[in-house]
Amino acid sequence: MPTIDPIEHGRIVDAALSEDLSGGDVTTDSLVPPHIQASARFVPRTHGVIAGLDVASAVFSRIDNEVQFTPHLVDGDVVEGGETVAIVSGSLASILKAERVALNFMQRMSGIASMTAQFVAAVEGTDAVIVDTRKTVPGLRSLDKAAVTAGRGRNHRRNLSDGVLIKDNHIAALQAEGMGLQQIIRRARAQAPHTVKIEVEVESLVEVEAAIDGGADIIMLDNMSTDDMREAVEMCEDQCLTEASGNVSLSTVREIAETGVDMISVGALTHSVEALDIGLDFDELEQ
Amino acid sequence: MPTIDPIEHGRIVDAALSEDLSGGDVTTDSLVPPHIQASARFVPRTHGVIAGLDVASAVFSRIDNEVQFTPHLVDGDVVEGGETVAIVSGSLASILKAERVALNFMQRMSGIASMTAQFVAAVEGTDAVIVDTRKTVPGLRSLDKAAVTAGRGRNHRRNLSDGVLIKDNHIAALQAEGMGLQQIIRRARAQAPHTVKIEVEVESLVEVEAAIDGGADIIMLDNMSTDDMREAVEMCEDQCLTEASGNVSLSTVREIAETGVDMISVGALTHSVEALDIGLDFDELEQ
Amino acid sequence: MPTIDPIEHGRIVDAALSEDLSGGDVTTDSLVPPHIQASARFVPRTHGVIAGLDVASAVFSRIDNEVQFTPHLVDGDVVEGGETVAIVSGSLASILKAERVALNFMQRMSGIASMTAQFVAAVEGTDAVIVDTRKTVPGLRSLDKAAVTAGRGRNHRRNLSDGVLIKDNHIAALQAEGMGLQQIIRRARAQAPHTVKIEVEVESLVEVEAAIDGGADIIMLDNMSTDDMREAVEMCEDQCLTEASGNVSLSTVREIAETGVDMISVGALTHSVEALDIGLDFDELEQ
Amino acid sequence: MPTIDPIEHGRIVDAALSEDLSGGDVTTDSLVPPHIQASARFVPRTHGVIAGLDVASAVFSRIDNEVQFTPHLVDGDVVEGGETVAIVSGSLASILKAERVALNFMQRMSGIASMTAQFVAAVEGTDAVIVDTRKTVPGLRSLDKAAVTAGRGRNHRRNLSDGVLIKDNHIAALQAEGMGLQQIIRRARAQAPHTVKIEVEVESLVEVEAAIDGGADIIMLDNMSTDDMREAVEMCEDQCLTEASGNVSLSTVREIAETGVDMISVGALTHSVEALDIGLDFDELEQ
Amino acid sequence: MPTIDPIEHGRIVDAALSEDLSGGDVTTDSLVPPHIQASARFVPRTHGVIAGLDVASAVFSRIDNEVQFTPHLVDGDVVEGGETVAIVSGSLASILKAERVALNFMQRMSGIASMTAQFVAAVEGTDAVIVDTRKTVPGLRSLDKAAVTAGRGRNHRRNLSDGVLIKDNHIAALQAEGMGLQQIIRRARAQAPHTVKIEVEVESLVEVEAAIDGGADIIMLDNMSTDDMREAVEMCEDQCLTEASGNVSLSTVREIAETGVDMISVGALTHSVEALDIGLDFDELEQ
Amino acid sequence: MPTIDPIEHGRIVDAALSEDLSGGDVTTDSLVPPHIQASARFVPRTHGVIAGLDVASAVFSRIDNEVQFTPHLVDGDVVEGGETVAIVSGSLASILKAERVALNFMQRMSGIASMTAQFVAAVEGTDAVIVDTRKTVPGLRSLDKAAVTAGRGRNHRRNLSDGVLIKDNHIAALQAEGMGLQQIIRRARAQAPHTVKIEVEVESLVEVEAAIDGGADIIMLDNMSTDDMREAVEMCEDQCLTEASGNVSLSTVREIAETGVDMISVGALTHSVEALDIGLDFDELEQ
Repeated sequence: MPTIDPIEHGRIVDAALSEDLSGGDVTTDSLVPPHIQASARFVPRTHGVIAGLDVASAVFSRIDNEVQFTPHLVDGDVVEGGETVAIVSGSLASILKAERVALNFMQRMSGIASMTAQFVAAVEGTDAVIVDTRKTVPGLRSLDKAAVTAGRGRNHRRNLSDGVLIKDNHIAALQAEGMGLQQIIRRARAQAPHTVKIEVEVESLVEVEAAIDGGADIIMLDNMSTDDMREAVEMCEDQCLTEASGNVSLSTVREIAETGVDMISVGALTHSVEALDIGLDFDELEQ
Repeated sequence: MPTIDPIEHGRIVDAALSEDLSGGDVTTDSLVPPHIQASARFVPRTHGVIAGLDVASAVFSRIDNEVQFTPHLVDGDVVEGGETVAIVSGSLASILKAERVALNFMQRMSGIASMTAQFVAAVEGTDAVIVDTRKTVPGLRSLDKAAVTAGRGRNHRRNLSDGVLIKDNHIAALQAEGMGLQQIIRRARAQAPHTVKIEVEVESLVEVEAAIDGGADIIMLDNMSTDDMREAVEMCEDQCLTEASGNVSLSTVREIAETGVDMISVGALTHSVEALDIGLDFDELEQ
Repeated sequence: MPTIDPIEHGRIVDAALSEDLSGGDVTTDSLVPPHIQASARFVPRTHGVIAGLDVASAVFSRIDNEVQFTPHLVDGDVVEGGETVAIVSGSLASILKAERVALNFMQRMSGIASMTAQFVAAVEGTDAVIVDTRKTVPGLRSLDKAAVTAGRGRNHRRNLSDGVLIKDNHIAALQAEGMGLQQIIRRARAQAPHTVKIEVEVESLVEVEAAIDGGADIIMLDNMSTDDMREAVEMCEDQCLTEASGNVSLSTVREIAETGVDMISVGALTHSVEALDIGLDFDELEQ
Repeated sequence: MPTIDPIEHGRIVDAALSEDLSGGDVTTDSLVPPHIQASARFVPRTHGVIAGLDVASAVFSRIDNEVQFTPHLVDGDVVEGGETVAIVSGSLASILKAERVALNFMQRMSGIASMTAQFVAAVEGTDAVIVDTRKTVPGLRSLDKAAVTAGRGRNHRRNLSDGVLIKDNHIAALQAEGMGLQQIIRRARAQAPHTVKIEVEVESLVEVEAAIDGGADIIMLDNMSTDDMREAVEMCEDQCLTEASGNVSLSTVREIAETGVDMISVGALTHSVEALDIGLDFDELEQ
Repeated sequence: MPTIDPIEHGRIVDAALSEDLSGGDVTTDSLVPPHIQASARFVPRTHGVIAGLDVASAVFSRIDNEVQFTPHLVDGDVVEGGETVAIVSGSLASILKAERVALNFMQRMSGIASMTAQFVAAVEGTDAVIVDTRKTVPGLRSLDKAAVTAGRGRNHRRNLSDGVLIKDNHIAALQAEGMGLQQIIRRARAQAPHTVKIEVEVESLVEVEAAIDGGADIIMLDNMSTDDMREAVEMCEDQCLTEASGNVSLSTVREIAETGVDMISVGALTHSVEALDIGLDFDELEQ
Repeated sequence: MPTIDPIEHGRIVDAALSEDLSGGDVTTDSLVPPHIQASARFVPRTHGVIAGLDVASAVFSRIDNEVQFTPHLVDGDVVEGGETVAIVSGSLASILKAERVALNFMQRMSGIASMTAQFVAAVEGTDAVIVDTRKTVPGLRSLDKAAVTAGRGRNHRRNLSDGVLIKDNHIAALQAEGMGLQQIIRRARAQAPHTVKIEVEVESLVEVEAAIDGGADIIMLDNMSTDDMREAVEMCEDQCLTEASGNVSLSTVREIAETGVDMISVGALTHSVEALDIGLDFDELEQ
């Protein structure tokens, strides 16, 4: 599972708390004396895969470092509705102030993990791995990508520097200058760091051939028919990896996986997230 | 439509660009000379409501202030698939570097606006207004809330300081100390700033009566039957506003609105967003 | 008492320490070996109300987390000259480096609390509450407002989002477009979030009537005679709150309070602060 | 007049705007369409010295860079009540959003400049210069010190690194270790950078003699009688500068200045500021 | 040449200016009126390769956006002592305040570019490329790496996420758990993103064989004899890239390159930089 | 030894870690389970002076606050190749992630300290002190200057506010306006804070005389012959300090010191640093 850099992590938690709490909490400050202690359970209302426990913990301790957050599970665990995921205890006032922000993180991350797990289950038994894209929520990419791995998906590029991905518009721009696909890939090989892989987006078998000939490390098969994908996979064998992309859904992913592609990228994992419904249920209040 | 504070706005755009581009763009840097000019159109693939034009514009100008971003519409406009929403022109390399981040903002915000507009349409002709919640993506609340208004929804509390909202756990904590609901509301009235309203979450008509008696400004009817809501609305008449909350969906919202409630809050507007599919289509490349 | 968000709090303390200490402390670094231990007492030279203990504590621990700051009182307590407010002990070098910044915070905040307490005392027995304004020192609003509550004053708006306040210039702008005061208030009611109150600044009884008719929640009586205020208060009864504003001083505040207004706002509480004179007296130095 | 570093300046303006505007301006957003243009004048209500024009200008352009801020004077100019200090014109909505923050800066800075000018006038004809202290508002030291120079005062240390100032507690700590004042000064001379001056705080003529003997560059005469000050000045002649400190007020400063001291430091210039009353008067609104 | 992300770039320039100028420039502020105009030339004193022109330009415009910085060359150009690299003109006071910071950037970056160019020249005619390492100055990696490319070197990993590099300590840790080198590489292949290459550090030909067998993309030959390197290169042919590392100097690099390795990494390019001596020569001062 | 302000220190460490680790560590995350414990020694490969232990410690604890960093020496200690400088122990994964950044700091700082110590040794027995300049790496000035003091050098100005230094271009600008050197110094004395020293850069004995006459506190002898320096030192006796500057190297510094100058400033201490070669040697891995 990927590290989330603690500086980035701190920045994200601080930004989230600032937008909710920078003017104080007029309700809790008016009503709840700080000495009242409480404990509460994070309980999902439905089946899913949990993620975001570390972030939720950080939210509470940033507000009040005497609040205890005790996870009962780890990111990536499957949960059923009603199960206790974690317990938070300490000053009731502090818990109430941090509750919404902690839930906002956990619900989104668990939603991503749960959806990813469904895609991973759908391709079980094939060699395909489910990967994410850069279609993440601005500012939360590190968390969105961590949530994908919690659902047993894998991460594609983190950002524009950790891999060359030559897309249709790069190709069109250079073809307008008279270059062919092979030449374009070779220029990338010559110019980009030796340490990164080169992936090329193609739309036809003719382009697949050119990409192999140019020396691509990975070929992204964009919106191809499964028949063409199957043929592309054969053409690539032992020479490069293949990635299927475009209009992948739970109903189509199995058929795509069975073409033999190495990776299937799914933008919806992070761009269209359905939050996992998780509640915070307070125990009887102690005094 | 709400202002987004320029400092907050700048922070959000910078964070989004940093996570994608802080190591450079190895593809574009290797392949696309900065002198190539291009123009491209933002085109939604389906019907929806557009939002996020200002943010997208800011993304491009932060990368290269010679790139021109020309909106053809304004936030809140209804679009059909295939329509041109905005044109961006300038250095192809700069456009390619900023493209994904700009789209990530616009697709989420337009998704929120489109969903909001569906809820607003569903209650047309009633007095109910559709409002959002604090269940927003951490760090992007100002954008999420702006997108709701683009869809003709209204904003509920921005944060914990701009209104008192006494929820079940506040009430339970104080009841454990022997206070009744009326007393709790009066304590809030006495302690909180005179300048904010006091809203109370209730689950029964008995509690509605107590809340009115305590002097609540707004009563949140949580998960009530529509019959009970109708009765609560009558009880509140001219004394306080009513807000329906809990399990609101497109199939139930009309019936809820017809009870006469003033507001209906919908968490899904921002916690479970389906991105509007928007593409960036390049024109023939100039040289 | 209001929460101060820990992120905001940290930002303020860091900014204050950076401006004093970012190049080191050439005096202490040259002269005082870090092993020398000391303890010192915060002692006001005159009567007043103490505030800022938490911030002072944070200043010392940010410099050296082994320095102990032990408050003997809490914010809002009344002190006499010579009383010990808090004791700080630990490395002398660390205490000397942090001393000025800690005192700068405490002296300002205690000055605000002391002045507020004088106004509150002056209206004792009436129903009026003393409230602050947005005329705070840029960057320190959260502390200025916390200091007001330490002096038993109450907070008016924290910022431009937590309440509508229609002032003379808003009114003039819309009257120039042909709108009357009632219409203006109704537009605000229709456009602003349902969850915030609407306050209107008026200068005459005619305007008071229009504001009531338009449905204002709070009416700010700006620079009115006390006779007019008294009449305004009667007109508003049970329909809206009243706030007196403008040229309020210790010599006039009682008379204003006796008109029956609900709130009296005093800009000078935060815009013209006389620091409370507090010293840091070292005990005999240990070795 | 001192430079204010643009990065620091930007940080201060951003922090001030964030705390007021980060949630939007619900009043202006509800009522004032952005197309309405306006112009308004900054007009002090009383006599004083103006300061803060640059900061006020920066506040408006940070909100809306099409707003024009046109100063009629420069920092340090004397103004009478009713005079126009600057004109701001552009979108009424933008002006209303920025107004309070701009005024908060100008009123404080002008208050400091005006008070400083009174002290400077009081010592006119003597050789004494009026200097400030580090008793500034946390986070605003650069502005507080710029305001002092606008009032024709001079700046003492900016921070703990630009001069050695050996105070009573440094001395006590080292005397407890068996060192005399001369030795202490010599240790500072040996340890501190050669490029900074060494100032010593003394309370008696005996200590003055020791300080001169130790080689101090500046001697701070703390709470001395004017007779002792006069004698100290003579003792120091041509060997070191003298600075009077402690309980300086407008009624005592002249007598102190006439002792011949080089500098008189006045903490109240920045720790107990009375804001200069400045208003923003709108012209007839254009449409 | 790699992009430097504008947000990162801005952060670096701001940090550099803050540390020099946050308290103002007491010399220039005391002596040089802002109206005096001047122009000055950046002139290296010796032969070298220039880099850092963009950063220098940004430094001046951050201080005063009316100062003109006109480069006569571009990063990567070879210069002789005495040549004019760029001209800066505008307010003398602004130029003097920014001069040192601008030179500090240019001298370091040009020093890196010049050293890199010497290594590149030394291997001319071979297939080896000179690459940098992560041994950069903390906080300036993006600039250090840009300077290497200005000297016609190539960049190795930017950071820990853009490539797998299995080093001796990773191997030792896993061997202690009973794994062999092949297994380790396969685990990395299975666990790391499909989109990154896998490089392995080896110290013997036996390990080279194991690394090839395990499927490494790049093999780092650490401190090997040139004979062993030559053999390793042959073993790797067409299967993986080779990188020579360890104790590379100008006197040994040619011999290493002639072994046929693909890359030679040189830590000293960035960890032991000799600044290129560049001066700022003022023209006759205009008035 | 100078304090490094903890806020500045935190900013520097965070920036360094962010640039290396913001996307995670794909190698360690793929291979090294977090439960494996390890310990490792920081061992220089050659003789030198150690510096940067505090920063290295902070790097590890920022990544994982359970990692123990135990220094065996303190900054400024002389080390031989092979000696253990510090031991770090804890999670192997955490140590591997932080290793490079910690070494980058220590190697640079120790390189500066070691070079400084060589200059200090070269002038032993004379009265000259070795001082640094503002030619530091942008963003790391506080660390560069701390490293100089670890090598027993002294710090010259930290920044542009802690001393007046009138350089050739200041003089030329004012001479163009008709002022002589004495007048320039007197203007600086009149305008700059009384609390800072005034240093003047001169190139001839005639200028030395004028500078003394004008009342300079320090005279910088720029690129003078040692004969002229000797004469300048005599001229200055008891009236001002002298500083030799320009083309100082290990082979010339002794001769310069013997002229009797008080300070010798050496830009190369920080602008052309040779990193001290320090390795991190892992002990046998525990399980």
